Amino acid sequence: MADTGWPGCAKSLKGVILDLCGVLYDSGEGDGVAISASVEAVNRLKASDLQLRFCTNETQATREKFVAKLRRLGFDISVSEVFPPAPAAIAVLRERGLRPHLLVHDGLLPEFDGVDKSNPNCVIIGDAAENFSYQNLNEAFRVLIGLEKPVLFALGQGRYYKETDGLKLDVGVYMKALEYACDLKAEVIGKPSPTFFQSVLNDMGLKPDEALMIGDDLVNDVGGAQFCGMKGVQVRTGKYRPTDERHPTVTADGTVDNLAQAVDVILRQRGH
Amino acid sequence: MADTGWPGCAKSLKGVILDLCGVLYDSGEGDGVAISASVEAVNRLKASDLQLRFCTNETQATREKFVAKLRRLGFDISVSEVFPPAPAAIAVLRERGLRPHLLVHDGLLPEFDGVDKSNPNCVIIGDAAENFSYQNLNEAFRVLIGLEKPVLFALGQGRYYKETDGLKLDVGVYMKALEYACDLKAEVIGKPSPTFFQSVLNDMGLKPDEALMIGDDLVNDVGGAQFCGMKGVQVRTGKYRPTDERHPTVTADGTVDNLAQAVDVILRQRGH
Repeated sequence: MADTGWPGCAKSLKGVILDLCGVLYDSGEGDGVAISASVEAVNRLKASDLQLRFCTNETQATREKFVAKLRRLGFDISVSEVFPPAPAAIAVLRERGLRPHLLVHDGLLPEFDGVDKSNPNCVIIGDAAENFSYQNLNEAFRVLIGLEKPVLFALGQGRYYKETDGLKLDVGVYMKALEYACDLKAEVIGKPSPTFFQSVLNDMGLKPDEALMIGDDLVNDVGGAQFCGMKGVQVRTGKYRPTDERHPTVTADGTVDNLAQAVDVILRQRGH
Repeated sequence: MADTGWPGCAKSLKGVILDLCGVLYDSGEGDGVAISASVEAVNRLKASDLQLRFCTNETQATREKFVAKLRRLGFDISVSEVFPPAPAAIAVLRERGLRPHLLVHDGLLPEFDGVDKSNPNCVIIGDAAENFSYQNLNEAFRVLIGLEKPVLFALGQGRYYKETDGLKLDVGVYMKALEYACDLKAEVIGKPSPTFFQSVLNDMGLKPDEALMIGDDLVNDVGGAQFCGMKGVQVRTGKYRPTDERHPTVTADGTVDNLAQAVDVILRQRGH
């Protein structure tokens, strides 16, 4: 019988999905900084027989610019391996004939260049950071409250993330603000949405129990992946907090100091 | 037996509590504008045998400046008749030995002049409007997340209010944002807190069933007052929306077009 616990499950894995911010690097001034030994850890996974994808709620830049930054930090990553929420959101808009009012980071706007934004009938919020001014949030609110059937999409639902100069409020906080203002429930596109994780599994052609998610966000990375039937391991970098290890509802399959240690354990189990 | 319905209950009333913004005036550019016939309606109540108080979640100015504005709009109102959340908050701080980090409107800051704000161990948010920048909200978040026992006070919990140029997000929206970010529950000081309504009743020396609340906010004015045992009447001015009249949980004892009509009905019932 296959060992389904951590780290024994590593023997039967066919793919690994990595979160990016807080696992490979910490964001902040300029490009941010790579987390110790993570460049080498990605290289070791790439050299193994495991498939590798990157699943992120990053919404401050287009995929192209985001991947270019990761490459400058030393990571061997290409655009086709990275799954952020914006392209998934654009697919949903097309499917449902929706025209968005955008409250997103300036760096993300080019992703929506080809999208009809006239006479909006929904609102999309991403991690807009400094663009979350009172005026901009009020404008998004007025669009929603003026719609007969208000639709709000949130590109992720994170509470906060860590930059080099400290913790920063994430998109989920403003999602809750607009939910309360308009008495509605947002639709989350990105982690921990099962549809979003499934699209990554589909791309690898794997079943959930053949894949492992590694992230720093206990609820959205680990819990989200586990909800889909994957294993979820948390790293003690990024937004990790010691209280995560006694969380009332989510328990990681494993907790490791950082990505390098996770990769060590996985490859050792597989006899590398 | 006394008639406890609206408008029959008006016969046995001893006091009336009025909300201000959306009932007496609409805020906006400069002082805002008085709502039609409301100056005369306040005068008629003052000339009657009913006690009169003003209960507001206004937190953009000190009581003195706020009352001065109302007087410029033509209302015969004095500071001692007006109950806003900030003085109630200061009493709570003193009682519990708390030192606040303030995220409030610049106009409210002088109310807190005598309050120790060094090394803060709680956060107070009011209707900070343009001060609800990403940076300021993030700063309040960092104070809270750094406390062993984070305490958040919200001066009201309104969703939005109406200014002359449209709807504006209120403090409750940012309360929900910080609640989610820090995984905590805020303590509301102001309407609909029962403690807050009770302090107004105490000042008049009345029991709840001797008083009527008139407001434009179905949940916080009408529902809050009803929860304390008062009658609650909603005006169709300010933030009133037609959907309020089929709200799932709060039903006003009466709904009137404006304050002038409410006063007409009350005084007619009382044989004036």
